[in-house]
Order: sequence, then structure tokens, then C-alpha cells
Amino acid sequence: MQETEADFLQIYDRRDYLSPLVTVDAAIFTFHNGELFVLLTKRSEHPEKDKWALPGGFVDETKDTSIEDTVQRKLKEKTGIEAPYVEQLQTVGNNIRDTRGWSVTVIYTALVAFQDCQSYVENISEASWILYSEAISMDVAFDHREIMQAARERLKQKALYSMIPAYALPEEFTLPELQACLEVLIDKPIQKKSFRRRIEQANLVEEVGQRPASGKGRPSTSYKLKANAKGFNFIRNLEA
Amino acid sequence: MQETEADFLQIYDRRDYLSPLVTVDAAIFTFHNGELFVLLTKRSEHPEKDKWALPGGFVDETKDTSIEDTVQRKLKEKTGIEAPYVEQLQTVGNNIRDTRGWSVTVIYTALVAFQDCQSYVENISEASWILYSEAISMDVAFDHREIMQAARERLKQKALYSMIPAYALPEEFTLPELQACLEVLIDKPIQKKSFRRRIEQANLVEEVGQRPASGKGRPSTSYKLKANAKGFNFIRNLEA
Repeated sequence: MQETEADFLQIYDRRDYLSPLVTVDAAIFTFHNGELFVLLTKRSEHPEKDKWALPGGFVDETKDTSIEDTVQRKLKEKTGIEAPYVEQLQTVGNNIRDTRGWSVTVIYTALVAFQDCQSYVENISEASWILYSEAISMDVAFDHREIMQAARERLKQKALYSMIPAYALPEEFTLPELQACLEVLIDKPIQKKSFRRRIEQANLVEEVGQRPASGKGRPSTSYKLKANAKGFNFIRNLEA
Repeated sequence: MQETEADFLQIYDRRDYLSPLVTVDAAIFTFHNGELFVLLTKRSEHPEKDKWALPGGFVDETKDTSIEDTVQRKLKEKTGIEAPYVEQLQTVGNNIRDTRGWSVTVIYTALVAFQDCQSYVENISEASWILYSEAISMDVAFDHREIMQAARERLKQKALYSMIPAYALPEEFTLPELQACLEVLIDKPIQKKSFRRRIEQANLVEEVGQRPASGKGRPSTSYKLKANAKGFNFIRNLEA
């Protein structure tokens, strides 16, 4: 008699096979005081104990139904919030990246507003916003420097044709704030006039009110993203 | 005394932890007789036994130093050749896609020339080129229909701004062949004139000779890709 799939599954046990370690790692960026920051956490356990690393960890089969659950759980543990922008970047798997053995990590890029999670982050002793320019010269754990660089490059490319810079800002922002965040992500200044025209033509933001003048300046208009901004791609890259 | 990393690794055993299954899967496409084909293999083992599936399988820690090794090994097993174009598409991981349990698969898209591997594929009883339009209405294994569709969509987008259609053709090809392959990948006709101008301006192909006339036609010029064509992206998408 032929073995059925049910027969097969009854005797099948994943523990009988050696399988690579599976983790998720997230490069979480934000924009604060005109600069780009990345969230790092200090490792409390071996391997690479006491080094700074990207937040991440193992799939927890009792909690996660998918790797998206795993990354959202890890993001929430470290920032206290649901990240408004999370994207899978790439997967790296090899036999040298982790001293525990063959290891596969699914890497995500995320953007959050500094103001939305700073009080939470401040209270987690092992997590900290680090200036990106400093983070890439630190002796971070595993291959996390290369991962940070790949994630930062993806954000740079994507900022040229999407509204993702807004996800590194609070829900309500001014156009000068959006332009400053975009300039940091693409690492180049842009002309105010062409930036404004691009935003107006795409019709992706709506006015939510006036922010009182600070100091001698005029009051400024604040905006939020429209629902259709998520996933919107400009046909042409911004010419920076 | 504090435990060192060496102490930790001495007692660490991956087998003590339940880890998701890790596989790679490859959606391998080719262009033949004016149509798009995908390579499927018939599963000989449970689960999903006897169903058609994308080629793939487990990391073999004795053979593979990276997941790229795994996918190249699987590609070579099924096609007999090194694929000239292989790209990581995305990773899918969840607790429902495989009856054996929590499963993570790293998905690749590849293009090969039909002529380069057909004699090999014909001799593997369990592998076959299936018309893509038929494959997506077959009852394939696991979530492989969705994976095929995502891979096909990526190729369509990428064909609009790169030279990847050439990788589904033999090393030497004519411009009408390249145009026909591009049109199948983007699923739209294009104007010969704008296609030719685009190829000429990009300077990515070089003449390798004349192919004798077949029937009443004139002899045709054959070309191959220049080295700089790999990884080249046009600034503007083809307007199809």
C-alpha cells in the first residue's frame, strides 16, 4: 500500500534534520535634528555579546504566523509602535555570518518618526538611536554593517520616486520638514521650487492646519499624507 | 568567571531549538517559439507528491556555503547549465505554506536560453518546460502559483528598463529575436523604430556576424551582449 501524505506527516519530525538558523533583522531609520539615525541594540547574550546590532531575532512559532509577524513583533519590542513603513530588503544566508552555524536572515527596512517612539526607546536600556554616519564606522555585530549600508542605499533609491520620507516624520509635518528629510535620505540638496511642484502635482498630501509661528517666522501650514500616498511611485525619479 | 563566546559555542547545539524549514525555490523562465515558458518539476516525495512545483529544495550544509550556492546547485541539477541571470526575488515565511510546519523559502527568478538546456531538460523525466499561461492555471504545489506570478511580474517590470530579455536567448541573437522576447516579457508590442534606437543609443550589444538567409529573407546580423550590459539600467522605462 502506498504511503499517504497523512502517514508521511505522522512520522515526519523537523528536528530529525539539521536546518539553518532563521532570523529576521530590521534596519530602522529615523530623521531627527536634520540627520539620519539608525536604531541599534546592545547584545546581551553570546555570540557577539556586548556589541551593537540591528534589532532582530528568531521566529517564535508560538507567537508568529509569518515572518512579517516576527519583524513587527521585534519592531514593537524596540520602538513601542507599529512602524508605518516596513519593507523586505533581501535575505542573506551563509555559513560564515554567525559562529553558531549556517544562518539565514531575512532583512527588513523600516522608517519611524523619532517623536513617536523616543520616550519608549529612552526607557529601553539596551536600545539607542545612533547617527547613521557613526554607526557605519562602529564595530557592530555579525554582517550588520553591510546590511545597514544596503538598507540605507535602498532608502536613498526609493526616496527618489516615492513618498517614503514622510514616514520618518510625525503624522503631521510641514513641507520644509518633508524637504529636509528627503534631502537627508537622498544625500543631496534639492530645489524648493521643483520639490513643491512635484508634491503639488502628485496630490498626495492634504492640509491639516496652521502651526503657530516660532520666533520671528510666519505660521506654517502642516500636512499629512493622503491614503493613496502609500505605495505611490512617481513616474520619474527626482532629479537631484 | 564570565562565560566566553568559546564556552558558549562549545555547549550550543542548533538541534536543541525548533527552527523553521529553510528552502530555496527558483522560477526559471525561457522564451521559445514566441512564448514564455516556466520550468516545473514533478514532486516525487511527500508532501504534495506528484504535483508540479518550482525547482528548489533544502540547503545542503555539506555542499553550499551560501543560499546563492544552493540556488545555483538546484538550477544546475534541473537545467544542466549555469543560469546567466539569477536574481533574488523575495522571501516568504509562514506556518501555512507547508504541511511539515513553519517554513521559510527564499525565492529566485532566473532566465536561461531554451536551446542551452533543452537536451538536458528532456532527459530529466521529472522536469519540463510548461507554457507560463498554462502553468498558472495548474494545481501546482504549495504557494508556487503566487510565487510564479510574483516572479513573472518582476521580470515584466525589469524588462522595461534593463537588458534582461537577452538572457532568455542564446548568446548570439538577432535584433528581431530580442524584440520578440522583450515583447513577450512585457506582454505588449513595441515599435521597431523606438526599440532599435534605444538599443543603439545604449551601446550594449556588439555585432558578431551574419546569419545566412532562411527561405526568401535577407541574411540577418547577429549580436551578443557587451560585458557592460549586465546590471545596466536604462534611465527611462520603455514606453510600451
